[in-house]
Amino acid sequence: MKYLIRLLACLFVATNMAAQEKALTVEDLIPGGKNHANFIPKTDYKVQWYGDELLFSNENEAFIAHPQKPDGKKPLLTKSELNNLLNEKEISLNRLSFVSLDNHLFATVFLSAKEKQVYLDLKNKTVAFEIQRKKDWANTDFCTGNKRLAFTLKNNLYVSNPEGKIIPVAEDADPYIVYGQAVHRNEFGIMKGTFWSPDGNYLAFYRMDETRVGDYPLVDISKREAELKNIKYPMAGMTSHEVTVGIYELSTGKTVYLKTGEPKDRYLTNISWSPNEKQIYIAELNREQNHLQLNQYDVGTGEKVRTLLEEHNDRYVEPEHPLLFLKKTPEHFIWQSKRNGYNHLYLYDTDGKLIRPLTSGDYDITDVLGVDADEKHIFVVSNAVSPIEFQAYKVNLNTAQQTQITFEAGVHHPQPSLSGKYLLDRFSNRTTPLNVDLINTSVSAKVRPVRLQTAENPYKEYALPDISLGSVKADDGKTDLYYHLIKPADFDPAKKYPVVIYVYGGPHSQMIKNNWLASARGWSLYMAQRGYLVFSMDNRGTSNRGFAFESVTHRQLGVIETADQMCGVKFLQSLPYVDKERIGVHGWSYGGFMTANLMLRHPETFKVGVAGGPVTDWKYYEVMYGERYMDTPQENPEGYGQTDMNGLAGNLKGRFLIIHGDMDPTVVWQNSLSFLKACITARTYPDYFVYPGHGHNMGGVDRVHLHEKITRYFEDYLK
Amino acid sequence: MKYLIRLLACLFVATNMAAQEKALTVEDLIPGGKNHANFIPKTDYKVQWYGDELLFSNENEAFIAHPQKPDGKKPLLTKSELNNLLNEKEISLNRLSFVSLDNHLFATVFLSAKEKQVYLDLKNKTVAFEIQRKKDWANTDFCTGNKRLAFTLKNNLYVSNPEGKIIPVAEDADPYIVYGQAVHRNEFGIMKGTFWSPDGNYLAFYRMDETRVGDYPLVDISKREAELKNIKYPMAGMTSHEVTVGIYELSTGKTVYLKTGEPKDRYLTNISWSPNEKQIYIAELNREQNHLQLNQYDVGTGEKVRTLLEEHNDRYVEPEHPLLFLKKTPEHFIWQSKRNGYNHLYLYDTDGKLIRPLTSGDYDITDVLGVDADEKHIFVVSNAVSPIEFQAYKVNLNTAQQTQITFEAGVHHPQPSLSGKYLLDRFSNRTTPLNVDLINTSVSAKVRPVRLQTAENPYKEYALPDISLGSVKADDGKTDLYYHLIKPADFDPAKKYPVVIYVYGGPHSQMIKNNWLASARGWSLYMAQRGYLVFSMDNRGTSNRGFAFESVTHRQLGVIETADQMCGVKFLQSLPYVDKERIGVHGWSYGGFMTANLMLRHPETFKVGVAGGPVTDWKYYEVMYGERYMDTPQENPEGYGQTDMNGLAGNLKGRFLIIHGDMDPTVVWQNSLSFLKACITARTYPDYFVYPGHGHNMGGVDRVHLHEKITRYFEDYLK
Repeated sequence: MKYLIRLLACLFVATNMAAQEKALTVEDLIPGGKNHANFIPKTDYKVQWYGDELLFSNENEAFIAHPQKPDGKKPLLTKSELNNLLNEKEISLNRLSFVSLDNHLFATVFLSAKEKQVYLDLKNKTVAFEIQRKKDWANTDFCTGNKRLAFTLKNNLYVSNPEGKIIPVAEDADPYIVYGQAVHRNEFGIMKGTFWSPDGNYLAFYRMDETRVGDYPLVDISKREAELKNIKYPMAGMTSHEVTVGIYELSTGKTVYLKTGEPKDRYLTNISWSPNEKQIYIAELNREQNHLQLNQYDVGTGEKVRTLLEEHNDRYVEPEHPLLFLKKTPEHFIWQSKRNGYNHLYLYDTDGKLIRPLTSGDYDITDVLGVDADEKHIFVVSNAVSPIEFQAYKVNLNTAQQTQITFEAGVHHPQPSLSGKYLLDRFSNRTTPLNVDLINTSVSAKVRPVRLQTAENPYKEYALPDISLGSVKADDGKTDLYYHLIKPADFDPAKKYPVVIYVYGGPHSQMIKNNWLASARGWSLYMAQRGYLVFSMDNRGTSNRGFAFESVTHRQLGVIETADQMCGVKFLQSLPYVDKERIGVHGWSYGGFMTANLMLRHPETFKVGVAGGPVTDWKYYEVMYGERYMDTPQENPEGYGQTDMNGLAGNLKGRFLIIHGDMDPTVVWQNSLSFLKACITARTYPDYFVYPGHGHNMGGVDRVHLHEKITRYFEDYLK
Repeated sequence: MKYLIRLLACLFVATNMAAQEKALTVEDLIPGGKNHANFIPKTDYKVQWYGDELLFSNENEAFIAHPQKPDGKKPLLTKSELNNLLNEKEISLNRLSFVSLDNHLFATVFLSAKEKQVYLDLKNKTVAFEIQRKKDWANTDFCTGNKRLAFTLKNNLYVSNPEGKIIPVAEDADPYIVYGQAVHRNEFGIMKGTFWSPDGNYLAFYRMDETRVGDYPLVDISKREAELKNIKYPMAGMTSHEVTVGIYELSTGKTVYLKTGEPKDRYLTNISWSPNEKQIYIAELNREQNHLQLNQYDVGTGEKVRTLLEEHNDRYVEPEHPLLFLKKTPEHFIWQSKRNGYNHLYLYDTDGKLIRPLTSGDYDITDVLGVDADEKHIFVVSNAVSPIEFQAYKVNLNTAQQTQITFEAGVHHPQPSLSGKYLLDRFSNRTTPLNVDLINTSVSAKVRPVRLQTAENPYKEYALPDISLGSVKADDGKTDLYYHLIKPADFDPAKKYPVVIYVYGGPHSQMIKNNWLASARGWSLYMAQRGYLVFSMDNRGTSNRGFAFESVTHRQLGVIETADQMCGVKFLQSLPYVDKERIGVHGWSYGGFMTANLMLRHPETFKVGVAGGPVTDWKYYEVMYGERYMDTPQENPEGYGQTDMNGLAGNLKGRFLIIHGDMDPTVVWQNSLSFLKACITARTYPDYFVYPGHGHNMGGVDRVHLHEKITRYFEDYLK
């Protein structure tokens, strides 16, 4: 196994560590900690678009400015004015959110005691209108066109008008028939279950039938006598839920179900309305997840009209983005696909004809920001410059010509104004906490963006560890894998240090970016402060590196990822200041699975490991994510066998702590418990801990306890 | 706090340790270990009574001898003869058990493949008769009088005749109506749910209605998708089950339920038939467990005839023994009671008149062996000589005169012959593994018993640790508490040793006896071999020391027990070879609760603790045991508060490992999980481990893993 080292950025963080004294604590560095909020880079004012004008706000006041004169801020509203307007006492301006209604912009605020949502006309300082929104209404979805609010109560779906009159849309006495909620366990980009038509005449919604899905028993021990809380959890290869799509017409009160037909355990993803409300589009994927059809349905009859396009891949196809229709040429839409190896944009017409590819090349489009008002350009973000840098571009919709519009090396989070003439760019890199810049999308790179806000380094009084970025070659000998390496502030290259590897390594993740502190987590900084080197690296199988990079792990999750991580370990072992006898690893969820892989496949290398909420056997994981990467246990017994940590339990040599939440609905508890059982049978000796009442992740103040617990384990056995 | 030391036996175990080499392993010392059976003292032959003759048997052969000529053994049966008789291949003679049918003695053997139980006439080497007994029949209860077998299937009750014809006795479609099984969670000495009348004309049985008892959810993770296994678990203060008693008459097939009346959550204990089958007696206890009535019912009508006697105690009354009727004077029976402070025998008549107390004094009668054929004497065992010695006595039923019939210091397990003229005495003491002696009950102490068998010391090739017995004063300054102290075989009084305290400390227990190795557990020997001192002591609240000693803990479990254990700790700390900085504690169940008490009430004393299956809060414990000692949470909020380990979670300083089986139906998992939650909230850091698929105790080979796990924890943190 060969590796090459390419250091991208080995500069020390600029400030001088030695002169500083204050030590960071878990309360500072861990989310949920008492002081954690102080360590998130903050600007004096939040800046956002208000149409094409800039709105600056903090807790007490809001200003408005024109992008051409950003310094010419005009007072818009004060906290006391807001409270007078709402007849409230302590609403602060940073609680306002914004909504666009037919290009009229309103600020909204939810008054929980009054159970209403108020829409404010900020410029005229008036209440435009308000709607009822009861506290127990879930999955609320407000329609800008008709001022109706869709919501769910238990698993039924309702619509209310502004006066609070409630119309049932879909109800069922069986609690396992679920209406109006996200389906397919939030895979395929599905984050909600209701979809208003553009003018608000229809509400499309998901119906999910879970009656044939197995119950997984969770137990809530916080009750006087422990209570059963079943969840529906379809495991890989088992009977899954069945989804259909209903179209409710407001004027008639009638619902038409789309005739999506058999087999019923297909995935109906990325529901998209045609601008004229006559058609609806669904990206339909077979249960095997290797064949996609983009289908058009007739809203009036529910009949399928045509298949616009199909995509097939022997590994998998993963649609994640709805259609983006153009307004001026509503028969045209933009489709995102990895069909050519990377995520790119394609302009299609509604007959399914490809008009032109809009982007191409060996990089992923990672974000689509929107189309300008003229519909000449689409704004996107990609990592074309470097896998760990994210820059914005405008792409000409007619010529596909791409123009870079952000430049500073690092990670940009731009947001276009209503017209698209400007971008607000939240930017950071390894040494820059946060800048908010204003960019004119029509001018060239030579014009510097206007700096609107900048955040102070929240660590300026602390001895911040040193963070460097670099890359090593993957186990294939050619692919660059990016890492960050964190060293104690008082690092002495003549000493030997223990190393903790923090790993995730699963799909849909990228831990290493050139953003603030190179994405280093607070716990990594904490461990570096305690005298450890901390190393993290994105192996193959992770995101934003194209389909081949991501999908090479297909049917054998953990195998190639582990081999890649071992390339990182070899790099570490080549460093003179690394103590090869003291290498540890920690990860959560997929990272817990990776930790188990590293501990059990390389017991001679790792002295200590801590795995949180780990998958231990993919047969216990759910259908959607599980079968995409592993196929079913029936189809891929070798792969399931090869990746089953329980079968490797006898290899354990180092100290290995496994942690699980007892109500984990994502990686069910059975994973780590069955691993314990396998270790007991194999006569190996892991350690274990449980966070009662917690799900897949420990949130709130308990997260601080968790990280102190993990730290102590390394202090006990690795230090 | 004062203590006095009274060493009872400080002799080293006789053999010379230094010359020996072999080391003991967990496989030798822990039940479930590969070699564990080799370390149980064994005699060449099993000896048991065959009427008034002695039956010697091993795997291959059986002999018979008269007690007057015990050396004159005559061959009775060989393995091959047995196999020929049964038409089987590999039944060994040590698989025979014995049953008495109207004073005809038969050996029985269960042939599982044939699903039948065979009754053998050994002397004539014939099959006397056989009955059907299917594998799924549970709670089988064979009647010697009518050759009928009562059994349960699911929760229903049946009787079969020898030909296998099955008659339903009591059936219910509701699975929470349970017939013919032990009730009241096996408290009050209840070990079964069917009671044949003396001549076999009636079957009395329990009916338990659990429909209103809360479900406690256990989860079986061994299934492909974890499965719920609810148990009915009434927690202290909650709605309990309701029990009634039915009398099934074989000749008519009719069942009469005893009219036990209200309130329905009383305890119906110690069902006893009158010799003439006309009455049945029940020791009835109120839910508060402080008032007992011994009631007589009419078998024909189910009506209550009379209350024979009542017992009341502000703490609790705990009936544990059915009535023992005399045969020659069937209107007389023997009743056991602690009413006068210690467990003693009382001769009553069936009008409820006390004829005479049979025993009295400041000691407990711990076993009633039976009455001789002449009904002149009753044979009992008591610890009158010393709390840790158990000797047999015969008590004259007319004069209450007591005569000691075993003498050697130690623990005797005698069994009278059919006539009562002889006892077979299985005896051991600290240095004697096992002797089987024959005792003539009519001769005086001067006549030595006849030694029939003796077991070799199974540790003779090993460097066995040194075990001494002693006592310290309890926290009251006056009560003697007995301990054993185990020292490494190579103990050097000039060194400083770490100490592990193995604790139980709960009701119905006595850990310290002068029997083989002074009851030292294999793990204690193992730890001593690894260089620890191991100490165990019976605190107040444990058994066989009278009611006041046992019940002083009432409404405050753990408080006085902990204070007493600290007297043991003070004694240890006074020993020059004890390292005061390295004191650890381990216990299981009540002992886990005690470990938690010691760790949390005395955090400065204990560096390491391991608690298995611990109660942490008595509100999670069941009604019967819980309310006896603690009353209900509603009645005793202070007591529940004071004894709640979760409230002390913030005190934790030492290393504390908690271990639980994930299917524990006795001390439900909620106990240790809620304690973890309390520690997390209090920001303290216990350790944890789970044995998946196990109940309250880890059995089989996993018990070896468990003890290796526990050992490693002490090795990590106490050594």
